[in-house]
Amino acid sequence: MSKKVAIILSGCGVFDGAEINETVLTALRLDQLGAKVEFFAPDILQTAVVNHQTNEPTNEQRNVLVESCRITRGKSRDVRELKAADFDALILPGGFGVASNLSDFASKGAACTVQKDTLAAILGFKDAKKPVGLICISPALSAKIYGEGVRCTIGTDAGTAAVVTQMGAQHQDTAVDGIVVDEVHRLVTTPAYMLTESLSEAAKGINKLVEQVLAMA
Amino acid sequence: MSKKVAIILSGCGVFDGAEINETVLTALRLDQLGAKVEFFAPDILQTAVVNHQTNEPTNEQRNVLVESCRITRGKSRDVRELKAADFDALILPGGFGVASNLSDFASKGAACTVQKDTLAAILGFKDAKKPVGLICISPALSAKIYGEGVRCTIGTDAGTAAVVTQMGAQHQDTAVDGIVVDEVHRLVTTPAYMLTESLSEAAKGINKLVEQVLAMA
Repeated sequence: MSKKVAIILSGCGVFDGAEINETVLTALRLDQLGAKVEFFAPDILQTAVVNHQTNEPTNEQRNVLVESCRITRGKSRDVRELKAADFDALILPGGFGVASNLSDFASKGAACTVQKDTLAAILGFKDAKKPVGLICISPALSAKIYGEGVRCTIGTDAGTAAVVTQMGAQHQDTAVDGIVVDEVHRLVTTPAYMLTESLSEAAKGINKLVEQVLAMA
Repeated sequence: MSKKVAIILSGCGVFDGAEINETVLTALRLDQLGAKVEFFAPDILQTAVVNHQTNEPTNEQRNVLVESCRITRGKSRDVRELKAADFDALILPGGFGVASNLSDFASKGAACTVQKDTLAAILGFKDAKKPVGLICISPALSAKIYGEGVRCTIGTDAGTAAVVTQMGAQHQDTAVDGIVVDEVHRLVTTPAYMLTESLSEAAKGINKLVEQVLAMA
């Protein structure tokens, strides 16, 4: 029986949505290991649309779910349809969309909240004790999901790590090819593009995360 | 000395731009093999903007170069800056943007023309006898670049193959994990998402194409 893994996306593009490279690397490793993958995203407007050539905000409006479908060839579904009972594990790639669409971490920091439909879906996996993988900036939401004491990594950025700690998580500095496994909370995290601009380097940590999540599933 | 490879993109998303998965798979294999990669795209409006959830056209306007920067984390440059002298090889992923932004193959078929800045850049590689890799639907442009007799594949789709043949190319049916190498024209082609919805299957052909292109560079 192949394992079923859900991936929640936050749009399409590192500066206002899901990090595309991390998303494809995650889906590639899952496919190579025989897992079945389905994609989800919240059906909401993006907080911002950023011109990715200039990194400046624009006046456009785009929908997180619709843009996520660019990465998935039309196959993303509303995150309200995501039920933990239908899957063995959940993975969230990074990208600024995690901090601006899936939550307001970018503007509120430690006082952030997670988008309600997204939070409900993730809590389903937590409550069912099914493993979750958080990549890049996604682990910043760990304490909002699992509460105080959860162990995770966002790499080595001291400023971000301090906020993660302030929120109640135990942050562990980690290299791009490393993962942090919290066996108690069944959470796996890796820094990916928080620490590199290299696809093959990002792949090392992401592959380890995917393998660990599947092993725990 | 690491080899330098240029990649030309046609936007961001399979239905109106570059196929994202093919782009990341190509860049991943190049990075794993130690090649240096730079991305380019024409600085023009997309012919269409397609809602990737519904596959229906919208009234939006988006720029091919700006949207390409979503895949490349801001690092795509105007294709007019692409000079073959600065690179050892060139690769074009697929996606409907190849047939609608880099050319008008989608609307004109065998009577299509290639976008002028893109054509000038590709002809630079042809004239310098530097290897070129075309993925997915991109090989449909082979005869427009190399003239009659060039050998290529777009997979096994009989309708598309007939148009490619009508344009003067020699089409060779090929499986998703195969490549066609035209040693005379120094052209390598593979079907990728013309024949699969699986990332790991697409990777097999794309990896072979990248390895062959680098071997010829």
